Amino acid sequence: MNTDELVELGQQLRVDSVRAAAAAGSGHPTSSMSAADLMAVLLANHLHYDFENPEHPGNDRFVLSKGHASPLLYSAYKAAGALDDEELLTFRRLGSRLEGHPTPRRLPWVETATGSLGQGLPIGVGIALAGKRLDHADYRVWVLCGDSELAEGSVWEAAEHAGYEHLDNLIAILDVNRLGQRGPTRHGHDLDAYARRFRAFDWHTIEIDGHDVDAVDRAYSEAVSTKRQPTAIIARTLKGKGVRATEDREGLHGKPVKDAEEAIEELGGVRDLRVRVHIPDSARFLHAVGNGSLELPRWDKGDQVATRDAYGRALAALGTARGEVVALDGEVGDSTRAEFFAKKHPDRYFECYIAEQQMIAAAVGMARRGWVPYASTFAAFLTRAHDFIRMASVSGAGINLNGSHAGVAIGQDGPSQMGLEDLAMLRAVHGSTVLYPCDANQTARLVAEMADLDGVRYLRTSRGESRVIYDPEEDFPVGGSKVLRASDRDRLTIVAAGVTLHEALAAADALGRDGIAARVIDLYSVKPVDRATLRRAAEETGCLLTVEDHREEGGLGDAVLDAFLDGRPVPRLVRLAVRTMPGSASPAEQLHAAGIDAESIAASARLLAEAAVVP
Amino acid sequence: MNTDELVELGQQLRVDSVRAAAAAGSGHPTSSMSAADLMAVLLANHLHYDFENPEHPGNDRFVLSKGHASPLLYSAYKAAGALDDEELLTFRRLGSRLEGHPTPRRLPWVETATGSLGQGLPIGVGIALAGKRLDHADYRVWVLCGDSELAEGSVWEAAEHAGYEHLDNLIAILDVNRLGQRGPTRHGHDLDAYARRFRAFDWHTIEIDGHDVDAVDRAYSEAVSTKRQPTAIIARTLKGKGVRATEDREGLHGKPVKDAEEAIEELGGVRDLRVRVHIPDSARFLHAVGNGSLELPRWDKGDQVATRDAYGRALAALGTARGEVVALDGEVGDSTRAEFFAKKHPDRYFECYIAEQQMIAAAVGMARRGWVPYASTFAAFLTRAHDFIRMASVSGAGINLNGSHAGVAIGQDGPSQMGLEDLAMLRAVHGSTVLYPCDANQTARLVAEMADLDGVRYLRTSRGESRVIYDPEEDFPVGGSKVLRASDRDRLTIVAAGVTLHEALAAADALGRDGIAARVIDLYSVKPVDRATLRRAAEETGCLLTVEDHREEGGLGDAVLDAFLDGRPVPRLVRLAVRTMPGSASPAEQLHAAGIDAESIAASARLLAEAAVVP
Repeated sequence: MNTDELVELGQQLRVDSVRAAAAAGSGHPTSSMSAADLMAVLLANHLHYDFENPEHPGNDRFVLSKGHASPLLYSAYKAAGALDDEELLTFRRLGSRLEGHPTPRRLPWVETATGSLGQGLPIGVGIALAGKRLDHADYRVWVLCGDSELAEGSVWEAAEHAGYEHLDNLIAILDVNRLGQRGPTRHGHDLDAYARRFRAFDWHTIEIDGHDVDAVDRAYSEAVSTKRQPTAIIARTLKGKGVRATEDREGLHGKPVKDAEEAIEELGGVRDLRVRVHIPDSARFLHAVGNGSLELPRWDKGDQVATRDAYGRALAALGTARGEVVALDGEVGDSTRAEFFAKKHPDRYFECYIAEQQMIAAAVGMARRGWVPYASTFAAFLTRAHDFIRMASVSGAGINLNGSHAGVAIGQDGPSQMGLEDLAMLRAVHGSTVLYPCDANQTARLVAEMADLDGVRYLRTSRGESRVIYDPEEDFPVGGSKVLRASDRDRLTIVAAGVTLHEALAAADALGRDGIAARVIDLYSVKPVDRATLRRAAEETGCLLTVEDHREEGGLGDAVLDAFLDGRPVPRLVRLAVRTMPGSASPAEQLHAAGIDAESIAASARLLAEAAVVP
Repeated sequence: MNTDELVELGQQLRVDSVRAAAAAGSGHPTSSMSAADLMAVLLANHLHYDFENPEHPGNDRFVLSKGHASPLLYSAYKAAGALDDEELLTFRRLGSRLEGHPTPRRLPWVETATGSLGQGLPIGVGIALAGKRLDHADYRVWVLCGDSELAEGSVWEAAEHAGYEHLDNLIAILDVNRLGQRGPTRHGHDLDAYARRFRAFDWHTIEIDGHDVDAVDRAYSEAVSTKRQPTAIIARTLKGKGVRATEDREGLHGKPVKDAEEAIEELGGVRDLRVRVHIPDSARFLHAVGNGSLELPRWDKGDQVATRDAYGRALAALGTARGEVVALDGEVGDSTRAEFFAKKHPDRYFECYIAEQQMIAAAVGMARRGWVPYASTFAAFLTRAHDFIRMASVSGAGINLNGSHAGVAIGQDGPSQMGLEDLAMLRAVHGSTVLYPCDANQTARLVAEMADLDGVRYLRTSRGESRVIYDPEEDFPVGGSKVLRASDRDRLTIVAAGVTLHEALAAADALGRDGIAARVIDLYSVKPVDRATLRRAAEETGCLLTVEDHREEGGLGDAVLDAFLDGRPVPRLVRLAVRTMPGSASPAEQLHAAGIDAESIAASARLLAEAAVVP
């Protein structure tokens, strides 16, 4: 398009943004209006995208990091012919595909859910990494960011990662409209403040007037031709641009334009320009292919092996069998044992350094491109990326997470390194799967099985060695459990997983010597949980004792309850969990101090079996 | 100390670090050895600190952001005479104050728990902000950072905040030893890479050889005399410095030196130098004083008020009564209503922009200085700072958190903005308090009450208006609940809080019309929970129906269970919670779609009262 057409298209996007928000009675038209010219030029002259075929491997990828500017995105979709005016005006209504913040669950052209600020750029980095190092494709990743969100540290994790990786297929468009939600941003219209920062992280930067369509056009061309560096286009814009009542004014964030009719007239009225977006050239859809034959590592019963070791070895084997499996780690691959994968498949291994948000974001971006990512760090440090994991579930992204060094059982390093809240965090993620193996063979099976599940999958592993109790041939279906001790004389059921499963077995042996038969269930699938087995145990033994190396809230004990929340009779319950703030001590001392070792289990079980209230 | 003495002191700190780790059989001596000269010069010539009086208002504050270098910290404490050699060698043992990563719970000289990397600098920013804007004191904040942790986005949130606020009382010492845990860092010994980044964020930077004690000494002097800018001292160091077997070698992170005896000899043997650390001049301990008379806002029964409005108004009133109350917000003060506090007490209000990690870190730093911080943002976005909240509990920090816009009840904005995991996250934090009010008067009372609790306190508020149902005089003790409907014919108990409490009341009315008496409990104190009232309800009505605008995992429903986990008989249970991924819709449509509105509650209650298993 030429200058005049681009200007017209920008105005149309503004008008449609105003109309959509007016129809909804809510939304963010002013945040859309500032970026309308940036979007118009991109759509008309630079984006390569086949709206008929969102899966086209040559498609550029567009990420609206400032997700609240969804009216602009949907107006652009309309201009591209992807949706009609009638649908545009369903914005934010029940059942509409056009949500307040865009999600790929509803719209095929949306790469990732946004709306939590500072996530679009890191996820864009993940897509760009996939383009460079996995897909080996020429697509570009365009990320439209707000200026407010540049305060988020995750943006600078992304800037660091992209600069270091020379991601010249990544272009960040910064819509510097000077106004955040509640008032001016830190740097206002000081474009150089942003440019300095991005340049320091080894980006190419271009500063422009974001309402000068020719300048925008030139900037995009310059970005596209820049080699070995990502580009940040820093565009001075005005929030609410084009309407006197809204332009550059405070206090209008997230509100429909008051007099929409007047605003539309001031913007030159409703238009119906259509953009023929460049269709990408034919492109290959390249996915590495494995040898197809999964040979998981095997251990003999009685071996002493850490489940983290089993994780690393199984993941390396899975990577050999399946070419689409990739691994990421937050600079602790020697601890999580992701290093085993790194050594075997260096081309599919991504060192994310100590930047857990960027690591999860990269996994989400790669999953969007069809890869099967496994991202690992200490379970404790996954909390750093909680918001990214939450948003991954909003996206419906299929990602595998591994948290190692779970619980007090790590020993001397102390509470900062102990994953004690991870089960609560991951269980509350919508559609998640939470697995917690107790031996090496079980771990290996679950690593393979989780690859093909939907949504966020989490595997919790342990630092120390534990005894192999399962045969390598044993199956561990997600949603299942294993009954390891059972008799028709059982007076209670002990439910455990991971390190406490071994303590539970020892406790059951001790109880047996006292004449108290105890059932033991290995609840390796914490979510979904094996309701049938738990219900049977409740009916047959009357009471359940749960033991977990985790805080008492939100973990294994709560998971067990899932089997009894439909109004049926509930068994008597005792929960053993970590209730204190640990210090440094040996693993055995830690388990004892937390009251989750065999001795503590046996003591509680005796009281429970005698039907006493446990003090 | 002169050059020779400083060199000797540095060697002593190395020797003692090696000895402590050797005695423990674990720990991070090589990470300590790189920073030993930096620490020696600071301790001997620049730090102002009275170890006999850690509460001295004039004390400088030292934060070991690279918390794993705890052997160095404890060796420095020994050199300062704060602990003896015998205690040094208890490092990492059960019951020792000298944990793997330092915490203020055990040692009075530790400002904040570290060990999760990238947290020390943001918390240092909080302490420095307190020094500048609250304490009006001259102390300096020295933060020793590793180079690996500079990959964390939180470091750049801190850099941005400190540069913008001209925190010339903040000095970051970067121990650039080139090696992370599993290998080289991104930038190795490229000091300028770090300097460029910090300069871009408006810091003064100084690049030095971190083993040249005179250069270190000069750098500290320059930093102290730098005005209007924080300073980053970027020091080239060698990991494991001073011992051939460890110096600048990979693969030795987090491991005791193999031949400790030989290493100690190579370092010149054991010394017993003592440092007389500068005692600070007399200083005032300045805390703003309020008028002492708390006049909380009051609303009449039947008024329609959003609990977020009540939060803002109550917080402003609390700030008037109590001068030590401060407020922080993540650029959404017009939504959380923290703006009411900001208008009334601008000198005690901290705009943290969209940087939730820095916001929580600042609160932790201010709490350490004796202030009572309230930090607010959308409940959903507190997940961004999960790791900081977790570490705050390891520190034992007393901070108040407010999460607004809880649940699907926010309506059109969609899932990215909905706090649906916040109760699970905050309940699992050790020692936390979790409050969820349903009306304005209750909110106001809880805002005041939470100020004096220990640990992390969380208040969940709602976007939409709700009916005032309590008298302004009503008390709401933490750990209590309110029974709002009760009779001796109750056939079940509905337990709810916040928005669902109103739905529960409506459901109870509808059930009453059908001849089904239902008890209703307002569980405003989600943690700790009112066990006595729940147990009585269970005994008297036999079954409990919980309803929450939150994911089914880890929230109100799980909280109720806390009353029944000691082996006593458990009532029959039904849990209503948000099980779907919401889109955009009106608040009422959202509650209905999630199955947590009055109609859904009544339908489930009917089944439960008839003792049927609820499908």
